[in-house]
Amino acid sequence: MADYQTLLLRHEGGVLHLTLNRPELRNALSMAMVAELRAALAAAEADATVRVIVLRGAGGHFCAGGDLKDMAGARMRLADEGPSVLAEMNAAFGHLCGAFAASRLAIVALLEGVVMGGGFGLACVADVALGGETVSFRLPETSLGVVPAQIAPFLVERLGYSQARRLAVTGGKLDGRAALALGLLHELHGVGAELDAALQRVLGEILQCAPAALAATKQLMARARLHAPASLVDEAAEAFTRAALGPEGMEGVSAFLEKRKPAWAPV
Amino acid sequence: MADYQTLLLRHEGGVLHLTLNRPELRNALSMAMVAELRAALAAAEADATVRVIVLRGAGGHFCAGGDLKDMAGARMRLADEGPSVLAEMNAAFGHLCGAFAASRLAIVALLEGVVMGGGFGLACVADVALGGETVSFRLPETSLGVVPAQIAPFLVERLGYSQARRLAVTGGKLDGRAALALGLLHELHGVGAELDAALQRVLGEILQCAPAALAATKQLMARARLHAPASLVDEAAEAFTRAALGPEGMEGVSAFLEKRKPAWAPV
Amino acid sequence: MADYQTLLLRHEGGVLHLTLNRPELRNALSMAMVAELRAALAAAEADATVRVIVLRGAGGHFCAGGDLKDMAGARMRLADEGPSVLAEMNAAFGHLCGAFAASRLAIVALLEGVVMGGGFGLACVADVALGGETVSFRLPETSLGVVPAQIAPFLVERLGYSQARRLAVTGGKLDGRAALALGLLHELHGVGAELDAALQRVLGEILQCAPAALAATKQLMARARLHAPASLVDEAAEAFTRAALGPEGMEGVSAFLEKRKPAWAPV
Repeated sequence: MADYQTLLLRHEGGVLHLTLNRPELRNALSMAMVAELRAALAAAEADATVRVIVLRGAGGHFCAGGDLKDMAGARMRLADEGPSVLAEMNAAFGHLCGAFAASRLAIVALLEGVVMGGGFGLACVADVALGGETVSFRLPETSLGVVPAQIAPFLVERLGYSQARRLAVTGGKLDGRAALALGLLHELHGVGAELDAALQRVLGEILQCAPAALAATKQLMARARLHAPASLVDEAAEAFTRAALGPEGMEGVSAFLEKRKPAWAPV
Repeated sequence: MADYQTLLLRHEGGVLHLTLNRPELRNALSMAMVAELRAALAAAEADATVRVIVLRGAGGHFCAGGDLKDMAGARMRLADEGPSVLAEMNAAFGHLCGAFAASRLAIVALLEGVVMGGGFGLACVADVALGGETVSFRLPETSLGVVPAQIAPFLVERLGYSQARRLAVTGGKLDGRAALALGLLHELHGVGAELDAALQRVLGEILQCAPAALAATKQLMARARLHAPASLVDEAAEAFTRAALGPEGMEGVSAFLEKRKPAWAPV
Repeated sequence: MADYQTLLLRHEGGVLHLTLNRPELRNALSMAMVAELRAALAAAEADATVRVIVLRGAGGHFCAGGDLKDMAGARMRLADEGPSVLAEMNAAFGHLCGAFAASRLAIVALLEGVVMGGGFGLACVADVALGGETVSFRLPETSLGVVPAQIAPFLVERLGYSQARRLAVTGGKLDGRAALALGLLHELHGVGAELDAALQRVLGEILQCAPAALAATKQLMARARLHAPASLVDEAAEAFTRAALGPEGMEGVSAFLEKRKPAWAPV
């Protein structure tokens, strides 16, 4: 596995545990961390043995958002390099969120402690978001005179337009229970053993699903967010047929008939 | 009324009660049933006396999903006929769901017992979903190596993109309370008299609405899912004017002024 | 401030309190009121000192919907002027809702008593909807033979497609608790001091946000409702850069470094 400065990686049983690892800065998203997250995601997607990514933060917090040092550095380079310095830094984060949101892999986020700004954005791109009771969310950008620009689309994807707009206008402070009520969290648990047990249960459910079938389902759903169902019938039928006639569909039928677990399911 | 092999039909007071009737197979969706459902829907839409369809399953279950015998039959015809056998079978179900979702009629689903796979899809195309306490939902496709392909768009329509994606990734097991919390069910009741009473109340509310006005409203909302409100002002104004100047609008004004119920409302 | 016949206006501390003021008619939306609301919104948007609009109704009700007298008047002009009389009246309301929904300002609705028809539509275009316990919602249009045509798109924006469709089909009766559960209301409080306190808290949160940054965030979210995140990365990066290098971003950094509140935040 590549050598990462800002991340911890552990690959076990089809699951890549990916930990934001700058605990002294509450895992602030430096440019280096953004680049490493993209690289780690790309490597995982290229590795046929990885099926799930579990994303979390070290030290009791998920992520406090952008790294102010990077931001200050970018401002100092403005005079020489012009505003594209800032735009490129910002776009890099948007591409990272987009890459997670569009991943063929199942993405689980474990959210504890502070989840702010860009961290809030990352929380929104996971397929499953499990919260610990210490969790608190916030969108501080507009109170600093800036825009949660790359985060905004993923807030809309996760919360729906109406709740996203309300959070944007009011600063987006939420505790775990409020986040659960909005569907920003799918589950809320005590941190530690209780949250770990929930994660194991969710991973067990995910690993029952054939990986390519899961990826095809995610892809169809992304299309369905913005296209009428009637326009998707043919491509859905193709996706179904491809899966049914492919190795997973064949193995699925065999396992069903032989009353055993399919090859992709943990014993 | 036409002679159906897999459905029971009863037409009473503007309401077509349409019951999936293969209780020994938990109302599995055979190709014959898919074809009959489309025919029954088309006949109902062509019948000016039908205003609501109530969809349910016989024998305490709603629907266990696709019929495995049909699936096996299609696989046997593959060698001769090629993959289009599967694609067409799958697309037929997608067209069925689309026809219900786009119907001018009000669609109510009564959901009890097992609601799986294609049955889950049908549950998602109803305007109103009433659940009995025995209900349980599941998306077993990916655990069998296939894709809930035609279902996926309707999961997104019903649950929103974020919750749909989460269910897709985790196998979609839900009991009645969880389904209620997600808006997959609109109400949850004890099976039997309590659920029947809820159905009567909902039917009473629906039958207060003028049928063409209800259809026009549904159509505008389907457009609004994928188009900005500003782009719909003119067609909305046309729909309003057409209704106001048509027979329903005239009758509505008269009934209001004469302090009586309009002709379309049950006495 | 302009002289309004149907509205009360009070501008205080960046907040325009805009009250529908026809209490004897439960603030029915006459054509005059629709025109005045558009004018008041346009004037507020042109006034750099206004940052928030609080919309409410006088006399304990929010708004009972369209004014039947206007409707009757339009019907009388039909013979001479043709159906465009109705269509234009209807479209004017649609443009009003669209203008509120697309406003650069933060919009807060205080919803008490009756919220019907067009009033329901206005309730849906607010960024934040605070309800008093007396609130009740209804969509009476289809029971009168007409279509909630301009309202329909905003119901979909606010509630999501599935819940909007269900309400349209069943007449849309909701009390405060049901509205809260659907996200039609964001908070529900006792009327009077409790609701006032909630409003002050929400206004305090909104006024912490830099006005142009808030407007840019709202605009990105409106785009994100109908476009894939990946297609928005560049314009999001531009919006971020413009804000960061503009006066608000500069003031935000200075205030942060100097450990003081930024200029736009109330002391």
